[in-house]
Amino acid sequence: MTAPDADRPADACSEPGGLGVQPAPPDRLAALRAELQRRGLDGFLAPRTDEFMGEYMPAYAERVQWLTGFSGSAGFLGVARDRAAIFVDGRYTLQVRDQVDPQTFTPRHLMEEPPTAWIRETFVEGERIGYDPWLHTRAGLGHLKRAADEVGAELVAVDGNPVDAVWTDQPAPPAAPIAPHAIEYAGETSLAKRLRLGADLARRKIAAAVLTASDSIAWLLNVRGGDVPNCPLALSYAVLKSDGSVDWFLDARKLTDAAREALDEGVALHPMDGFAAALQALGRAEPGVRVLADAVGGPAAVVDHLSKGGAQVVEGEDPCQLPKALKNEVEIEGARLAHRRDGAALARFLHWLESVSENGSITELDAIDKLYEFRTRGVRFNGPSFETIAGYGPNGAIVHYRAAPTTNRRIEPGSLLLVDSGGQYDEGTTDVTRTIPIGAPTAEMRTRFTQVLKGHIAIATARFPKGVTGSQLDPFARQALWAAGVDYDHGTGHGVGSYLNVHEGPQRISKSHSAVPLQPGMIVSNEPGYYKTGAFGIRIENLVAVYPVVNPAEGAEKELYGFETLTLAPIDRRLIEPALLAVHEVAWLDGYHARVLEEIGPIVEADVRRWLEDACAPI
Amino acid sequence: MTAPDADRPADACSEPGGLGVQPAPPDRLAALRAELQRRGLDGFLAPRTDEFMGEYMPAYAERVQWLTGFSGSAGFLGVARDRAAIFVDGRYTLQVRDQVDPQTFTPRHLMEEPPTAWIRETFVEGERIGYDPWLHTRAGLGHLKRAADEVGAELVAVDGNPVDAVWTDQPAPPAAPIAPHAIEYAGETSLAKRLRLGADLARRKIAAAVLTASDSIAWLLNVRGGDVPNCPLALSYAVLKSDGSVDWFLDARKLTDAAREALDEGVALHPMDGFAAALQALGRAEPGVRVLADAVGGPAAVVDHLSKGGAQVVEGEDPCQLPKALKNEVEIEGARLAHRRDGAALARFLHWLESVSENGSITELDAIDKLYEFRTRGVRFNGPSFETIAGYGPNGAIVHYRAAPTTNRRIEPGSLLLVDSGGQYDEGTTDVTRTIPIGAPTAEMRTRFTQVLKGHIAIATARFPKGVTGSQLDPFARQALWAAGVDYDHGTGHGVGSYLNVHEGPQRISKSHSAVPLQPGMIVSNEPGYYKTGAFGIRIENLVAVYPVVNPAEGAEKELYGFETLTLAPIDRRLIEPALLAVHEVAWLDGYHARVLEEIGPIVEADVRRWLEDACAPI
Repeated sequence: MTAPDADRPADACSEPGGLGVQPAPPDRLAALRAELQRRGLDGFLAPRTDEFMGEYMPAYAERVQWLTGFSGSAGFLGVARDRAAIFVDGRYTLQVRDQVDPQTFTPRHLMEEPPTAWIRETFVEGERIGYDPWLHTRAGLGHLKRAADEVGAELVAVDGNPVDAVWTDQPAPPAAPIAPHAIEYAGETSLAKRLRLGADLARRKIAAAVLTASDSIAWLLNVRGGDVPNCPLALSYAVLKSDGSVDWFLDARKLTDAAREALDEGVALHPMDGFAAALQALGRAEPGVRVLADAVGGPAAVVDHLSKGGAQVVEGEDPCQLPKALKNEVEIEGARLAHRRDGAALARFLHWLESVSENGSITELDAIDKLYEFRTRGVRFNGPSFETIAGYGPNGAIVHYRAAPTTNRRIEPGSLLLVDSGGQYDEGTTDVTRTIPIGAPTAEMRTRFTQVLKGHIAIATARFPKGVTGSQLDPFARQALWAAGVDYDHGTGHGVGSYLNVHEGPQRISKSHSAVPLQPGMIVSNEPGYYKTGAFGIRIENLVAVYPVVNPAEGAEKELYGFETLTLAPIDRRLIEPALLAVHEVAWLDGYHARVLEEIGPIVEADVRRWLEDACAPI
Repeated sequence: MTAPDADRPADACSEPGGLGVQPAPPDRLAALRAELQRRGLDGFLAPRTDEFMGEYMPAYAERVQWLTGFSGSAGFLGVARDRAAIFVDGRYTLQVRDQVDPQTFTPRHLMEEPPTAWIRETFVEGERIGYDPWLHTRAGLGHLKRAADEVGAELVAVDGNPVDAVWTDQPAPPAAPIAPHAIEYAGETSLAKRLRLGADLARRKIAAAVLTASDSIAWLLNVRGGDVPNCPLALSYAVLKSDGSVDWFLDARKLTDAAREALDEGVALHPMDGFAAALQALGRAEPGVRVLADAVGGPAAVVDHLSKGGAQVVEGEDPCQLPKALKNEVEIEGARLAHRRDGAALARFLHWLESVSENGSITELDAIDKLYEFRTRGVRFNGPSFETIAGYGPNGAIVHYRAAPTTNRRIEPGSLLLVDSGGQYDEGTTDVTRTIPIGAPTAEMRTRFTQVLKGHIAIATARFPKGVTGSQLDPFARQALWAAGVDYDHGTGHGVGSYLNVHEGPQRISKSHSAVPLQPGMIVSNEPGYYKTGAFGIRIENLVAVYPVVNPAEGAEKELYGFETLTLAPIDRRLIEPALLAVHEVAWLDGYHARVLEEIGPIVEADVRRWLEDACAPI
């Protein structure tokens, strides 16, 4: 799944959550306005996010969609007494016009005509603009506050979201069961993790850290939930103390008996609605106590409540983020196992695709269903890690494309099919993209595919000293494309969790500056691409894990790292122009295919194995 | 000449300016303290810089050296009533102990025990610490002010540097003649440049821009001076108005008749000491007038005086910086001519070196003298562009090494000689490094040299789309070294002026993040290296110019750029291990050597030409 790049919005995908894609009835906005008036507010600002600020949202938090009809994954709503505007980025400028009534909500470009400009145009001195402090980061809020200041208006934090007050049939918060993430998959007990991180807080003279990222809490407590699509998350909050104990704020009914039993000592359960008071209590109990909060990725309300209670807020990175990214040996071995199972599903899918695609009998949606079906045959498969992308021809050139009945294309000879998909297994998370020619590919397709492959191999074979960041490796993936005068407009790699989020930080391989060095245990995607608008898309994506090179060349002076490729699926040889490959590139490809055959061949059916033998033959 | 890299101090080199290298007499510090007391000051802070903040300084500004004896190119002096400290970076920790009396000035590490910490340790509430606002940037001053604030002390801008008041035999400011930089070298009249930049200021609603960088003024006015070593600069200030006119503040006696005659319309001459008043006058004449000042690279005093007069200061980049970096066709053609002449000098030098080095009869200093002598044979040669580096064996591994009588090594068989040098010609500035084996090189030397060469060729042959920055190309230069577990601890490339500074911005090729895309006309160095401490150093440096590729591959979608190599000198084949080179790398090297022979062969003596034919033979 593609990674965001410099200053571009995250390419997040989201299920519409069962809500309609028609413009919302205008009486919803009228009801909201009445509610605002009741509260003495002249306006309201609502980003499309929830109070956990993850990539995926539960249905009850789809407030922007309920009010407007817009189902895109990123948006921002501004409501005033006499006007309202919806802000979307370049991906959604067409979609917003289909889904939203422009008479009610003026569509605006999120970057070119941003909410700050709208605030300055719309409000006047003395007006009060409401916002929900659980839905804004401190950084984001700063811009909005300055804009309001300039016209003499005031931003007012609301107590309780006014949309919820008028959304009569708002879905209930999700309450999916929380299961333990067993030690044979996690590799480290929650207690060990908590003591380790707590000791680090103590060294920094920090008494507690507030955790609002659901994947951080899942990792720290060795639990997995199901509150949002595609990521095994339980929506909750936590406060980690420097002694390793945790106050966990959640709907405890979600805990299965197994999960409750598996909780190590030192985890106290509290209801969600006690979280704000608990934040205030920290400073009340010990005025000036130093508490770590994530001011960049967490809700502004956390800092507000901490400060209100008298704590000294230390703004810094979520303390779980880096430790979570550094997979231990059990997690890496789990990733290998998950990828073997995922590779078998892919081999069956690619074999099936070859047999049915030549006669034009299937569509993108058929392919998505079939791939899912093959994945479900694998044990400990818990669902997709994101909504599968299957883009044929021109649809493959749309980087954020998701097939829908209205866009669904028939797969027929003449172009390329791009399939980007992944699975959640107990042992780990997968994410793989393959591009398949339907019928005979053109010389142009083969040339571009081979240039993308050269970039993929450059990352796969890179060796680099300790301290090198993903932004330093990114150019290797683009070198062959650059030389040909083309490029791709997304990142080369994103971090991937261990049976957790398919997009995780802090590392990435991308044009945008990254200060985080790549370190052993980090899993990242390696996914260069090429997109010809209106024609076809190409992407070759494997997951790779950073490992320390134990036998560097004689005379090596630096600690040296390389990548182990985890993903096991053939790269279509019909799209490769061997004359464009260097000797070492052919060697990598042949070696990779030999490994795919060796690891996947024995676990698939005879006909799939025969197909695989051919698909994995040397160049 | 090596470029600085991420967060490392600039590798500036400086002539000691004829001053002694012995500890300074302690009565100088006593005199300064008396002067401070007279002014009601409890301390004084003095960075080693002058009020133009360039890389090279005139002798009168060597206040730190006069007070302490320290002759390094970077340092910071702190003086209090009862103690004083000198702050130097890692390059100078040994040298400072040789040159400075530690009883008088405590040596401290500039980064590890910085001036801010010393301020907090030294001063108490109510104390007044003086500083010369012409010698500090606003950014640098911010840190110092915060440190003083923390202990309740106050930073006080002095009117007139107190060191000057007690330095009785302080040299006079330099007054080298200012000559016109003729249109046949500049390629664009000063008037055209000024109208172009003025129009750009007008578009930004800026009335005037303050110029304090001497090379910006030299470029804008098409003049060259000689006030500092190695760079043809006239120390002065200027204010560029949006109508293209310039107020130029200088000692007008420096102007030759030719320069005075060559000045286009719209340049008004003013005495230096009227500069501060003129800055204040801008706001007095038009309160709130928007004036651009360089807050990062210019003296804090500029902003102080502008604000005092009532101008609205717009902090931004020096408006000459980017236009100066984008060389026009005349300047690029001049660079080619200068490099041909410089290449002839290098060929003579390398030929001579081969004949004398095998018997150990010469030293590093002899080599430096001889190279200078060969360069002086070229027409329109105006001196070196920096102090030549000639490092034999272990000296070659010291990146900032400058040979001195105490360190001077005999050049004899058994190791490598690294020679980094450059010339200032009317047509352009050169900068070239070659590494030469003295006697038979070891296999290790050949392997490392070839790895460095692979990096050099990767940059020389890179093609990249519009928008790519030097930090994105930097990894290509390191790839082969990284794979071998080694690296080099300096930048890969720095900008180079056109008969101007050998280090200029805004572009660079380096690990540290650069937001400036490489653009046609920019000249940068391409200088990867490898340094084995205590043994030998390797660097291969050519200058290259960015050019637009006019015949990109079929299907290219982006505006594509590449590098034209300007430097013409053989790369020593005895150090190359051909088995480590790819076919395209051999092709580049053979093609480069054929060009060197073709362009330099006809302009050198017969014996040098014969030597060159051999040195430039195909691999």
